[in-house]
Amino acid sequence: MDYITELEDQGRVAKQAARKLATLSTVVKNQALLAMAKALEENHSQIVIANAKDIANAENSGMPKPLIDRLLLNEARIKAMADGLRQIAALPDPIGETLTGWQNQNGLAISKVRVPLGVIGIIYEARPNVTVDAAGLCLKAGNAVILRGGSEAINSNTAVTAVIAQAAYDTGIPQGAIALVSTTDRQAVTAMLKLNKYLDVIIPRGGAGLIRTVVENSTVPVIETGTGVCHTFVDESADLDMAQEIAFNAKVSRPGVCNAMETLLVHADVAAEFLPDMLERYHQAGVELRGCYETMKYHQAVKRATESDWAAEFLDLILAVRVVDSLDMALEHIAAYSTRHSEAIITKDYNNARRFQQEVDAAAVYVNASTRFTDGFEFGFGAEIGISTQKLHARGPMGLPELTSIKYVINGNGQIR
Amino acid sequence: MDYITELEDQGRVAKQAARKLATLSTVVKNQALLAMAKALEENHSQIVIANAKDIANAENSGMPKPLIDRLLLNEARIKAMADGLRQIAALPDPIGETLTGWQNQNGLAISKVRVPLGVIGIIYEARPNVTVDAAGLCLKAGNAVILRGGSEAINSNTAVTAVIAQAAYDTGIPQGAIALVSTTDRQAVTAMLKLNKYLDVIIPRGGAGLIRTVVENSTVPVIETGTGVCHTFVDESADLDMAQEIAFNAKVSRPGVCNAMETLLVHADVAAEFLPDMLERYHQAGVELRGCYETMKYHQAVKRATESDWAAEFLDLILAVRVVDSLDMALEHIAAYSTRHSEAIITKDYNNARRFQQEVDAAAVYVNASTRFTDGFEFGFGAEIGISTQKLHARGPMGLPELTSIKYVINGNGQIR
Repeated sequence: MDYITELEDQGRVAKQAARKLATLSTVVKNQALLAMAKALEENHSQIVIANAKDIANAENSGMPKPLIDRLLLNEARIKAMADGLRQIAALPDPIGETLTGWQNQNGLAISKVRVPLGVIGIIYEARPNVTVDAAGLCLKAGNAVILRGGSEAINSNTAVTAVIAQAAYDTGIPQGAIALVSTTDRQAVTAMLKLNKYLDVIIPRGGAGLIRTVVENSTVPVIETGTGVCHTFVDESADLDMAQEIAFNAKVSRPGVCNAMETLLVHADVAAEFLPDMLERYHQAGVELRGCYETMKYHQAVKRATESDWAAEFLDLILAVRVVDSLDMALEHIAAYSTRHSEAIITKDYNNARRFQQEVDAAAVYVNASTRFTDGFEFGFGAEIGISTQKLHARGPMGLPELTSIKYVINGNGQIR
Repeated sequence: MDYITELEDQGRVAKQAARKLATLSTVVKNQALLAMAKALEENHSQIVIANAKDIANAENSGMPKPLIDRLLLNEARIKAMADGLRQIAALPDPIGETLTGWQNQNGLAISKVRVPLGVIGIIYEARPNVTVDAAGLCLKAGNAVILRGGSEAINSNTAVTAVIAQAAYDTGIPQGAIALVSTTDRQAVTAMLKLNKYLDVIIPRGGAGLIRTVVENSTVPVIETGTGVCHTFVDESADLDMAQEIAFNAKVSRPGVCNAMETLLVHADVAAEFLPDMLERYHQAGVELRGCYETMKYHQAVKRATESDWAAEFLDLILAVRVVDSLDMALEHIAAYSTRHSEAIITKDYNNARRFQQEVDAAAVYVNASTRFTDGFEFGFGAEIGISTQKLHARGPMGLPELTSIKYVINGNGQIR
């Protein structure tokens, strides 16, 4: 079967499945999630065998070790995936919640009720755990899902999807509610991005290149995730010990994620006191430093930052550092280079804190905390399908409610207009 | 200046304006709206003169009378536009509302606060009142707006925008907060759809062709509005008098709008009792009837409906009528042909009402009322920028809150992760 036919079939069946999923009780959905978890554990050896093919291919193609490690599945990691499904089962069901309700002037009782989005397309890169995670979250929110994983993980994803889709079906979830695009042909992504007839939304999860491809080519509505050029601004009134701890944590604790800091902004009045120790600490931790001329004065390891460094999402132990003359200059810098993900000010000044939070346009705006907290689990959502960097529909960490829509349910007794 | 340069300039200035608009108080925004209203009234003669050029061009190009009437501006209509702005001023300001707030496990105080979307692009067709309405709603919700009206109304739109933009600027609204694309070149629309750097969302308002063009070509997120293939299902338990009133109202009261009924579904058990009178009443009202074979039995004026009639948004005194054997068949028909705008069941049966409201996937699902109520004003929103037929971000009538996004404002005292 060619991939267009497969996609059309999967889309049509998913749309039918979505109609049934929308009316399933929480009990049925949770039973399915628990059965999927159990099935993953029971079938771990066949999943590991499939994964071994992906690992062998990756090694033959010279994939770097850290990426191979991300791809690897073993019994412990499969157990972790299963536990993830159990956690999703334990979360409250967003579907059916009445968000608001009122009676209009004609006596119509209008309720705004949370309903599933319908059919969600997820396009993602190598980690096979996303397959399970995305399928579980979509199912809990009453959505059908069409998954399109990276070619490096195709054998793992195929094995994992077969196991969880069968377990779901066996517990009463309609056929086709969880589907995986079987081809690794890139044209299938292009076709998926035009599948408006069946897909209600596409969520890309991966690097900047993937996100850009999806945003530029999709006619299906997209929730853009991920890119984070996050700043921390050390105000002239900052507690400098606190500032050092936060700025160090924001860069070094996990540099490869989107909520890590990429640029440190320091008020000129505290630069001489703050920067020498701070820069030395980064240097000791192996952070490559790229700064403005002023910053370069305070540590010999600092190289001159270029214009492109201010806009870079390094995702690595690299930091851009700039000394600014004022809060206004910090706000201008952030407005110019931020991807509107997470921004922080370290300050003891009430008015500066207030202005920063009001004027910075980003999903999460912090006072005196690390940007690393922008995360569905840290926020207490108990789940995360991604972090939206767009303003439409969802912004910031997306949990189950962000995988839903609404409908107006209206009861009358003969009203005409 | 070529249109690409103009658009880029307008986008850049609008983005700067949006930063300031986001922090303006309700008082300032309301003063601007009232000043805009006053300026429209004071400058009505120059607007009428500009409008006369559009009317002359329309007559020369042979535009049908009803469309010319839609295009016409006179003192009374300008007064109505001004009153619309005053109504927007009287509405509650959505910006700054704290939607929810909590403390996370690390002691971070997290608030989810309503903020403007940023810069909104509105692409619309001939009615010049949309210019004022859209500008007013966007301003009240703290957004900058770039308006792109139809070429038929370019002189009217230019005059109206000049008046309201100046009045807004004079009361403290930043320059460029309200802008109109000055060219009627269609390429400007294409360029606007790719203006991701400056536009946060595009809302098309107009016919199916315009909406399709925008959805298929925009890389900026879109809120799709408008198309309504709405059904009314007369259940076997319906109060047939009520059913007749509702079904007549839904088709005839204003056939050219998206919430008008396009297809009437009738349960076979009541067809013989219900349809003869109903069809005769439609016939008397000048409604062209297109039905299934079963429907054709009940009135000689009924022509055979084709497959395309079931999917048609007639926006006219034309109605498709189908007799169905069951609620299930009605639900299947609606799932197959509905545009998920507004759907109604007329019934006295509790379980049928419940099933219909749960299983029909549409923005508004009615029991015993006319679909014509799907409207921001009828819902009591006090405003309407359009009716969303997509599931992402907004669904159904869109008022001021639908022109907003959120941000997380987070206060800590040194938290690191």
